Amino acid sequence: MLVQQRSLRLPPMPRGFHLISDRIAHALTEMSPIGAGVLHLFLCHTSASLTLNENADPDVRRDLEMSFNRIAPEEAPYTHTCEGPDDMPAHVKSSLLGASLLIPLRSGRMLLGTWQGIYLCEHRQHGGARQLWMTAWGTPM
Amino acid sequence: MLVQQRSLRLPPMPRGFHLISDRIAHALTEMSPIGAGVLHLFLCHTSASLTLNENADPDVRRDLEMSFNRIAPEEAPYTHTCEGPDDMPAHVKSSLLGASLLIPLRSGRMLLGTWQGIYLCEHRQHGGARQLWMTAWGTPM
Amino acid sequence: MLVQQRSLRLPPMPRGFHLISDRIAHALTEMSPIGAGVLHLFLCHTSASLTLNENADPDVRRDLEMSFNRIAPEEAPYTHTCEGPDDMPAHVKSSLLGASLLIPLRSGRMLLGTWQGIYLCEHRQHGGARQLWMTAWGTPM
Repeated sequence: MLVQQRSLRLPPMPRGFHLISDRIAHALTEMSPIGAGVLHLFLCHTSASLTLNENADPDVRRDLEMSFNRIAPEEAPYTHTCEGPDDMPAHVKSSLLGASLLIPLRSGRMLLGTWQGIYLCEHRQHGGARQLWMTAWGTPM
Repeated sequence: MLVQQRSLRLPPMPRGFHLISDRIAHALTEMSPIGAGVLHLFLCHTSASLTLNENADPDVRRDLEMSFNRIAPEEAPYTHTCEGPDDMPAHVKSSLLGASLLIPLRSGRMLLGTWQGIYLCEHRQHGGARQLWMTAWGTPM
Repeated sequence: MLVQQRSLRLPPMPRGFHLISDRIAHALTEMSPIGAGVLHLFLCHTSASLTLNENADPDVRRDLEMSFNRIAPEEAPYTHTCEGPDDMPAHVKSSLLGASLLIPLRSGRMLLGTWQGIYLCEHRQHGGARQLWMTAWGTPM
């Protein structure tokens, strides 16, 4: 049984939904390969989130941004407004989407479906760099 | 410490919320029993999802379908419409609900609450069969 | 490799979003410390949920309650109404937010970001006490 943990710094990204599957897959190659197990991704923030969604058509990313802006609109009657109009909606989206993902590992690779991609969802206009923890466990390969 | 992994194919189900607790419990009996640990369920799709909710009254399932249709309506101004009006709302619902569940195991069984059932949420009109990975780890029983 | 599991009873809390980070951190000190691993929190209910969000300004908690009341309003055309007007919205919120959290552990402590707090989200007017399972695994410290 192998347990490994590392941090990963994601560079600043504009508000929106961004595919980071390749970054995660690359960081995973720097850890010892797992035969059968799980990878946990954990974002240390409350105004950005992680999700899995369609990895092909860029329109999907734009439609996700539009959809979540409708679900958590900037013009709702928030009290916590001191950090700007995009802050409180960012907190709502962060709880809707979640800060963490769990992906099965097999033969050293993530068991993602054909159309599944890993997204960083940046909910702030200027969110800055984002800190992520990767923990992988399972049988050694 | 035991780590086990298997795939499970769910047959095509109509759009809606479907209880699959019994299917999962049955598949779990085909794995070595875990004394204390966790079961991870992972759906390899971006237009269906997994959730836990009330396992008794079928009205709850219909109300969940109605509620998520209001949260992610078909008539929003989507750009990604090439796969039909139910496709982009399905992607939004998939990110809202999530593709993965983590359930504690004890004495070989899932530690679900009295009213908790496992749901496959099928967001497409004709989603087809769905592929799921089960990973269980913990102490042997 | 260490796997530990315990239950935790949360006392009744009023409807709303409640910080429980200190309760969880305290319960964690009663388990053997993990050097590198993960903590799973699992709520055994379908009308309350767990989430991570901003741990400083109490206004955020009030705005989260307001926001989720807009996303899952009491006045939607529900069929399942026998348990009161707050029941079916509670089920919707429970699936939106989720019953479970996964937090990385390192040197015996949770690797939460500076602003991340653990919330119990009580969606019922009178939800009563809530039962939670904690499972921690990883390398011994």
